[in-house]
Amino acid sequence: MKFMKDKKILVVGLGMIGASYAKKLREHGLYVGGISARQSTIDYALENGVIDSGSIEVTSDYVKRFDIIISALYPKLFIEWVKNYQQFFKSGAILTDTTGVKCSVLYEIQSFLRKDVELIGAHPMAGREVSGIESMDTGIFEGANYLITPTDANTPEAVETARKIGEMLGFKSISVLSPEEHDEMIAFLSQLTHCIAVSLMCCKDSTHLVDYTGDSFRDLTRIANINEKMWPELFMMNRSELLEQMNLFEKEFSKLRKAVEDRDVQTIREMLILSTSRRKQFNR
Amino acid sequence: MKFMKDKKILVVGLGMIGASYAKKLREHGLYVGGISARQSTIDYALENGVIDSGSIEVTSDYVKRFDIIISALYPKLFIEWVKNYQQFFKSGAILTDTTGVKCSVLYEIQSFLRKDVELIGAHPMAGREVSGIESMDTGIFEGANYLITPTDANTPEAVETARKIGEMLGFKSISVLSPEEHDEMIAFLSQLTHCIAVSLMCCKDSTHLVDYTGDSFRDLTRIANINEKMWPELFMMNRSELLEQMNLFEKEFSKLRKAVEDRDVQTIREMLILSTSRRKQFNR
Repeated sequence: MKFMKDKKILVVGLGMIGASYAKKLREHGLYVGGISARQSTIDYALENGVIDSGSIEVTSDYVKRFDIIISALYPKLFIEWVKNYQQFFKSGAILTDTTGVKCSVLYEIQSFLRKDVELIGAHPMAGREVSGIESMDTGIFEGANYLITPTDANTPEAVETARKIGEMLGFKSISVLSPEEHDEMIAFLSQLTHCIAVSLMCCKDSTHLVDYTGDSFRDLTRIANINEKMWPELFMMNRSELLEQMNLFEKEFSKLRKAVEDRDVQTIREMLILSTSRRKQFNR
Repeated sequence: MKFMKDKKILVVGLGMIGASYAKKLREHGLYVGGISARQSTIDYALENGVIDSGSIEVTSDYVKRFDIIISALYPKLFIEWVKNYQQFFKSGAILTDTTGVKCSVLYEIQSFLRKDVELIGAHPMAGREVSGIESMDTGIFEGANYLITPTDANTPEAVETARKIGEMLGFKSISVLSPEEHDEMIAFLSQLTHCIAVSLMCCKDSTHLVDYTGDSFRDLTRIANINEKMWPELFMMNRSELLEQMNLFEKEFSKLRKAVEDRDVQTIREMLILSTSRRKQFNR
């Protein structure tokens, strides 16, 4: 990590993810600054060794000190923040992010971003259903994936910088894929599964069934405990991909429902065999 | 368990569940016999201390020795077996089962069962996606639920016998509920969730996504590894309940899909809040 040693990093947004980033990067000996909307968060961060310095105001004097700016804001706020404050960025600064949708965020910002500054997208797949700086936990990256999503506007140096950040945070694996591949994958693996879990919990008041509940229902609904502020925003910012995956699932589910209705045991069996053979690939 | 000590128990079907039952009951000092279609299974069971005696033939001489008969056959086969061999049962014998659907099995058998014999339904919620006597495991009952499903045809004594069996097997909790309540609950908690997991795996060949797969997708599809012989039979024998639960889920999922399509963030948020508050009841 030699080439990073003299870089100063600014983390914008000191929620659970932002604070965990800041603390972990600081443990590597880097100078880390922080911006938060609340003074109490800055105070907490300074007292707990999360940042070296912090500010609730976004000033040119403060922001221009940093070589790398990491946004840990919700996607819409991130776009607004860059629009409002990019004139303060140091020339040559590298900007990266933590948002769970890529195309709509990256292409939008890159369309108005200063030409002497570079945005490289990244997605730490390490969310938890907790929020706020008090929930920070530098251990959450250990078993998780870090995805870097360069566009045509990016240089190899920026990809390398994002990779170094992922390595310092301690992610298990680091992958590079296009924003389009990312958004399709995340719509299927994450957004669709959350929609399914939520729909299942909305079916009926099932609390009287708690005593009978085995592992299958618990497994399927674990992610039904979901942040109602962030997820609708993520859904909207990846809307067409999510709709495509939801339609795909609805089609398969309807096929199975119809087979049950028609007593078409052959079709049911075929779906079970396909399902079982594919699922084996995911065993670990 | 005093009153059980002198009872002889016959287990019909020595697959994973039947053999685990037999071995565990024998550990309590009971005399346990076994019936299997294959001599190799009987031999294995005798060699491994699963049963005291066994037979591949169903004869009056053998069957009439037993006070309690436990079927660990698939549901349809169970019905046929009772139809074919009930004339061999000892008068006053108690018959119980292990099938995962209740109404269609119990009411059918009770409609033709000899009047001097009693069938009390039971469902050990302790399946594994493995089969055969070699997979037996007397530890699988420990954390699991045992459900007793009496009908109007049952006596309190038979319920008590089923309860004693559940206790000896070591189940964590034992509940009594009607076959109708059982089938609705199992359609929602177990059959619907399996249908969802299977549909999700059938959506697309997702094996290239293995590297990116976080816990949510793994959690939702763990039960997509499913026995294609038994489950279609269970679906068919609980068809109308399952269809009702599938329709319920489809309605909620469509509502969420439409909200995403219409950019109706308010509805999405309401579903997420409801889902989160209900899921909290299932945390443990």
